[in-house]
Amino acid sequence: MSTADSSPVSAPGQTPATAALLRRRRDTLGPHSPLFYEEPLHLASGAGVWLTAADGTEYLDGYNNVPHVGHANPRVQQAICDQAGRLNVHTRYLQDRVVEYAERLLATFDTDLDRLFLTNSGSEANELALRLATQHTGARGVLVTDFSYHGNTRSLAELTTGLAVGEEFGDHVRAFHVPDTVTATGVDPRSLLESSAAQLDAALGSLQEAGHGVAALLVDPLFSTEGMPEPPDGWTQMLGEKVRAAGGLVIADEVQSGFGRLGGAMWGHQAVGLDPDLVTMGKPMGNGHPMGGVVTTAELLDEFGRRNMYFNTFAGNPVSSAAGLAVLEEMEDRRLMAHAAELGARVHRQLEEIASGTARISARRGSGLFFGLEIIDDDGSPDARATKRLVEEMKRRRLLISRIGPQDNVLKIRPPMVIEDHEAQLLLEGLAESVATVLR
Amino acid sequence: MSTADSSPVSAPGQTPATAALLRRRRDTLGPHSPLFYEEPLHLASGAGVWLTAADGTEYLDGYNNVPHVGHANPRVQQAICDQAGRLNVHTRYLQDRVVEYAERLLATFDTDLDRLFLTNSGSEANELALRLATQHTGARGVLVTDFSYHGNTRSLAELTTGLAVGEEFGDHVRAFHVPDTVTATGVDPRSLLESSAAQLDAALGSLQEAGHGVAALLVDPLFSTEGMPEPPDGWTQMLGEKVRAAGGLVIADEVQSGFGRLGGAMWGHQAVGLDPDLVTMGKPMGNGHPMGGVVTTAELLDEFGRRNMYFNTFAGNPVSSAAGLAVLEEMEDRRLMAHAAELGARVHRQLEEIASGTARISARRGSGLFFGLEIIDDDGSPDARATKRLVEEMKRRRLLISRIGPQDNVLKIRPPMVIEDHEAQLLLEGLAESVATVLR
Repeated sequence: MSTADSSPVSAPGQTPATAALLRRRRDTLGPHSPLFYEEPLHLASGAGVWLTAADGTEYLDGYNNVPHVGHANPRVQQAICDQAGRLNVHTRYLQDRVVEYAERLLATFDTDLDRLFLTNSGSEANELALRLATQHTGARGVLVTDFSYHGNTRSLAELTTGLAVGEEFGDHVRAFHVPDTVTATGVDPRSLLESSAAQLDAALGSLQEAGHGVAALLVDPLFSTEGMPEPPDGWTQMLGEKVRAAGGLVIADEVQSGFGRLGGAMWGHQAVGLDPDLVTMGKPMGNGHPMGGVVTTAELLDEFGRRNMYFNTFAGNPVSSAAGLAVLEEMEDRRLMAHAAELGARVHRQLEEIASGTARISARRGSGLFFGLEIIDDDGSPDARATKRLVEEMKRRRLLISRIGPQDNVLKIRPPMVIEDHEAQLLLEGLAESVATVLR
Repeated sequence: MSTADSSPVSAPGQTPATAALLRRRRDTLGPHSPLFYEEPLHLASGAGVWLTAADGTEYLDGYNNVPHVGHANPRVQQAICDQAGRLNVHTRYLQDRVVEYAERLLATFDTDLDRLFLTNSGSEANELALRLATQHTGARGVLVTDFSYHGNTRSLAELTTGLAVGEEFGDHVRAFHVPDTVTATGVDPRSLLESSAAQLDAALGSLQEAGHGVAALLVDPLFSTEGMPEPPDGWTQMLGEKVRAAGGLVIADEVQSGFGRLGGAMWGHQAVGLDPDLVTMGKPMGNGHPMGGVVTTAELLDEFGRRNMYFNTFAGNPVSSAAGLAVLEEMEDRRLMAHAAELGARVHRQLEEIASGTARISARRGSGLFFGLEIIDDDGSPDARATKRLVEEMKRRRLLISRIGPQDNVLKIRPPMVIEDHEAQLLLEGLAESVATVLR
């Protein structure tokens, strides 16, 4: 047995049933399959932003973006039920659902991004986007940020900078730092821009010199895993232009920032002014039903399709398509993007107030219904321990959030999009109390 | 627009509705997304082995293995419905369903294969198995057959020999030919074994000499894409031993041969006597719900888990687990594996009779409910054209089958496991008539 076990097998206060389940889990999925919290949370059911544990305790979900339109959303459930009772086949037979879904999804993009490949996950989507980019450019080099994660395949592991992987960092990959105007208080944004430009030039030049060339930039427009740094004005455009000038394509990984999460736009790249050749998506797409996709231009799709017999057995099946359609319909009928903007703005203001009450919160980050609070210690250093304690304290108060960032010191608050005002208030009250308790 | 379009936009006899749908499909998914048949089949619903087209025509499905326990299986539908209405979250919260499923699935394996990673597809499963093998061995080399397909990621594209990919064949990959006792009539099986041994030695030696070493053998135990060749006795054991002696792990890709399809055993590797370190699965696992998995030993899982933070957002969620459980329960309650053996044996005998009636069918292949018929021309050469005509003629008779093999001349018949005797008879009668029509 490993000494680095990540799943506790028993903990104080655990019911015998939970302890037994943990043992059975360990004996099948092994000791490393990750679990949240010091004492894992054993869930039984959910509805909207609420989750009910096996012991009957109710938790407010302030973390999960996969149940985008709410846990156990009735419309999504009904759509899956109906279609699973009718037909579920691959796309080599002609069927309506996948075409309806593709049309509906593509309508949310700028006009040149008008073709869709469907996959089963964000990992499969990023894999495919990289295949398109490397084949199109004839180059291998990839540019990523210095604390990022884009999926669990080997090609993606080779460019992972944000968590532990057994593969060596690819010699065809270069990582750059996202400049942050929030942390760099007192620094002239222009000097941030210039130093970042020099770093990007060096990275791109190094890929060229090594003979790899530049195939693609692969970035989350919101830089979620990176802790949501806020680059200076003009930086995002510069990033895209430099990559294009070096011959590479721009891939926007919208697994976290897409589907209206940021409030002001359906897609993160639209919100930040990045102009991608390929957009990848995953998590919220089917409200938990395994779905991913790559949106691109007709030219890139056509070029790839001529050279490759790409087929994906499950992707685009009518049940997945029905789930995806239900998510889009629910978003539209309930005006969830506008809701994210409106409620999000109010919550950001209240977070600002909470932050202003303590020197231990050094920054408020994010946009729409994606919030980050940066936690520091009394000396101003990132405080991962206090951040973790805040997450546990919130759980004690039956409120679920998490943490991100290279120093693990950014509280990550990202509730399902259907969170209502009074629910957001519960979250904020609990946060204020947790801050008062932990950051005394 | 591409000149290599694979999706017809209109064809004689098409209804205006189907033609319009084809155009809309092309304008969203593009012209290369593959479709079966000269005129695509527009499906509306299914039940058991029956599929109903948009125009009301009923087809008997003699091809699809994804709807393993039947199209729109009520038990699978109910399981998905119930669970989607209750809870669908990732595995970082503790939940019962995934553990129940893992226990149930692992019980079908030999005792040393007692750990499970869940994924969303066979591609993700093969990716993960290769990551485990390369990290375990510290080697890169992979051995595959000379006409195989294991998935659509980049690492898998680099070792694809059975269809067009834009990536170059990996310099760390060697392909070998599966010796076939059926075609090599009159050849002493021992000499087949010896020449194959020499070829395997050369491939493994070449990987060692090039400095790649041997990470893994990756094979479908049934060699489905390869056209189901039947190697001589002792060959499979020899293959595994040689790979192990060279330091590599054995990966059995059970995407096509698993879940009782071959009748005599739950898994293809058990049926053919291959002793794998890793078993990958996909297609039939969730009856169409996107699911895949890697089964391996506690040691390999533990080694990988210590080095890698492997997480898969959708995999193992309670809805997917419920779908997987329903498939296993349905298989057990309806004795589908025994059914595959019993009905399969009868159908194989009848196929033998059909084959004996014409010199144009040179071999009958397969096992359980997986059947292959090899079609040749009057000179004894592989006849892809006649094979294609047979598939189209069967469709005209409302019977769905397909074709495989390096020469595209093996009829592939692989109905859902719930096919009943009278339905198999319809398929056989239609096949006899189609053979009489096409192979005159």
